[in-house]
Amino acid sequence: MDDLGGNIVKRLRMVIALAAIPLFLAGCGDLGSSSMSSGSKGSTSGTQLTGQSTDSDYEGVIQSGHYRVSKSRGVTNTQDSGNTYNLKSFENGMLNVSKKVFSTKNYVFQEGQYLSSTTVQDWLDRKSKTNATGLNPVDNGSKSATKRNPIYIQALEEQDYMTQKNNKLSLAGVTVGIAVNSVDYYKKEQYGATYQTKISKADGEAYAKKTANTVLKRMRQKSALKNVPIVIAIYRQASNDSLVGGNFLAYSNNKAGTTSVSKWTALAQKNYVFPLESGQSSPNSNDASSFSNFKSQVENFFPNLSGVTAQAQYDGKTLQGMHINITTQFYSQTEIISFTQYLQTAAQKYLPSGVPIDITVSSTDGIQSFLSRKASEKTFSSHVFNSY
Amino acid sequence: MDDLGGNIVKRLRMVIALAAIPLFLAGCGDLGSSSMSSGSKGSTSGTQLTGQSTDSDYEGVIQSGHYRVSKSRGVTNTQDSGNTYNLKSFENGMLNVSKKVFSTKNYVFQEGQYLSSTTVQDWLDRKSKTNATGLNPVDNGSKSATKRNPIYIQALEEQDYMTQKNNKLSLAGVTVGIAVNSVDYYKKEQYGATYQTKISKADGEAYAKKTANTVLKRMRQKSALKNVPIVIAIYRQASNDSLVGGNFLAYSNNKAGTTSVSKWTALAQKNYVFPLESGQSSPNSNDASSFSNFKSQVENFFPNLSGVTAQAQYDGKTLQGMHINITTQFYSQTEIISFTQYLQTAAQKYLPSGVPIDITVSSTDGIQSFLSRKASEKTFSSHVFNSY
Repeated sequence: MDDLGGNIVKRLRMVIALAAIPLFLAGCGDLGSSSMSSGSKGSTSGTQLTGQSTDSDYEGVIQSGHYRVSKSRGVTNTQDSGNTYNLKSFENGMLNVSKKVFSTKNYVFQEGQYLSSTTVQDWLDRKSKTNATGLNPVDNGSKSATKRNPIYIQALEEQDYMTQKNNKLSLAGVTVGIAVNSVDYYKKEQYGATYQTKISKADGEAYAKKTANTVLKRMRQKSALKNVPIVIAIYRQASNDSLVGGNFLAYSNNKAGTTSVSKWTALAQKNYVFPLESGQSSPNSNDASSFSNFKSQVENFFPNLSGVTAQAQYDGKTLQGMHINITTQFYSQTEIISFTQYLQTAAQKYLPSGVPIDITVSSTDGIQSFLSRKASEKTFSSHVFNSY
Repeated sequence: MDDLGGNIVKRLRMVIALAAIPLFLAGCGDLGSSSMSSGSKGSTSGTQLTGQSTDSDYEGVIQSGHYRVSKSRGVTNTQDSGNTYNLKSFENGMLNVSKKVFSTKNYVFQEGQYLSSTTVQDWLDRKSKTNATGLNPVDNGSKSATKRNPIYIQALEEQDYMTQKNNKLSLAGVTVGIAVNSVDYYKKEQYGATYQTKISKADGEAYAKKTANTVLKRMRQKSALKNVPIVIAIYRQASNDSLVGGNFLAYSNNKAGTTSVSKWTALAQKNYVFPLESGQSSPNSNDASSFSNFKSQVENFFPNLSGVTAQAQYDGKTLQGMHINITTQFYSQTEIISFTQYLQTAAQKYLPSGVPIDITVSSTDGIQSFLSRKASEKTFSSHVFNSY
């Protein structure tokens, strides 16, 4: 397995860059249908869509048989996050914020095509004599955790939203995510120990909002982005030791042509890990105790079970969903089948209803089985991974 | 992660052992319902069932809140297989053979309770002066691959099938799987190189059938097993370099009281790995080319994609199903979402219909998404693994 490569590429993805690359759309797919080009392999020259799994997902753009990847794909930032949860959380959260403005019914998702590597690399660096566009503060020379200027802006990502008219896709909106650190990890000397500068929620949010104005202004200078709505969403990264990603603090929907943010909408999204650490409390104690009941019921099933944990997301005091992870030692296939059936019953009995929940059962050999229930469903569906 | 422990436990599971341990069934669950005991935690004293995911799965037995594990759980064999596919394939195959005799509607599955560690450990060893019950041939002293007596019987597993009467579960049938080697891996000296003795299909099957008679006779000596049907299924292990497990060659359904096998029913099950190696052919070339079309369509989607392979199972010339594995480098969450949507469309378009198919997308970070379609369904359902 290309473990090293995978990790490097993963880290590389915390950044986005900017470039005004024109879109060539030669014959577009029909948004209504999910049909793919039926041309012979390799000769597919038009634009197609990926097809839509559910009404709540965007379709994506395929160009000449290839997925149209982000213009910043694989760009690196010397400063990376160290918490892989942030990455999925940031991208998914951007999709969810976008859905408030660009409906999945009328818009098609496209990986960012306007922010290219070099420019955003510069944006994410510190401002300096050689880097006038840096969005992070100048280095004030201090190595003291409380006196130095921290790196506030950790990541910046673009998502494009397209509509179809006369069989052509055209840009109809952009979402930009700005991720600010809650902790800035730094070294006093190369290969030295890692130190931390903590950034309060208020400080980080204020810095990001100021930055958002700069970003909006710069994006409006590109002709393709002058007259489309630009949504800016502010994300606060979780610290490296967190078992769940960070969360979005606020977003703004900036109408075509506007060059400064006039209004922010606050988001009350917050993530928790169950079981809660002692002394910690969640917005709704019923959910935490539901999970505890489920956990102790499930832990009794086998002579040994390594762990049952959950990521829970709240909007204010309302649970939005849960990702439950169960890690086991090796079990036989028949044990996994029985355990999964048992989970199906126990999950329905103990876990909160009305929210999407999925449960993953993994061993050292990887995933063994998987259960999920949508918000609207009563029972969990399940799948046991199998082999011939 | 407890990698070492996991692997050891995994290897340990290739064996089963025998002991006549009486079943204590104090108040049984209702086969019709999947309800669990609603007693307070820890005080659940009766027997419950796991609940049934689908009509085609057996329910399992829970005793006082704990799963009733096999009496041979964790028993070791010094000779293990080295091919983890065999393990899942063997246990799943035993379930499938059992379903031909014991319907999932009327029978409940229980891990083997009659074969205990020490006895079957002896059975799987070679026959010798100190081990009269060994089912494998005596050591003839030769170290030559063609002259030595190989280890034929690699694994032996028991599954129990229960019915309910007057609110009690009672044993109504047993399935025993006997796994014979296609290759016996051996060492001429401790820590030395590994050599191979190949065992032809005909030789292995003949040896296993002879062994089946011995096993049946021995099982009938236990009073609990005297008057239940005993199904014996013969499995041929895949070699260690195979990317798919072995397959079942034949089974016999031995009526209550019988002490020798009167009739074997041949099974024409065979597993293949797609893409086929050059020179190899599958029972139905349409399936192989369907897979090729799917593979090349999918491989074009991203700038780089590590591999698309499939396990395919046939019964004679008829495809029974496919497990498709797609391994990727790291992709962003939005890329995984788009790729999964694309797969949903491409799979439906290119892959054979009318058989169960699942598709797993994994990166070095583990599973990323998953699609499946049952034999009776037209479209694939999908799930993208997520994190808050």
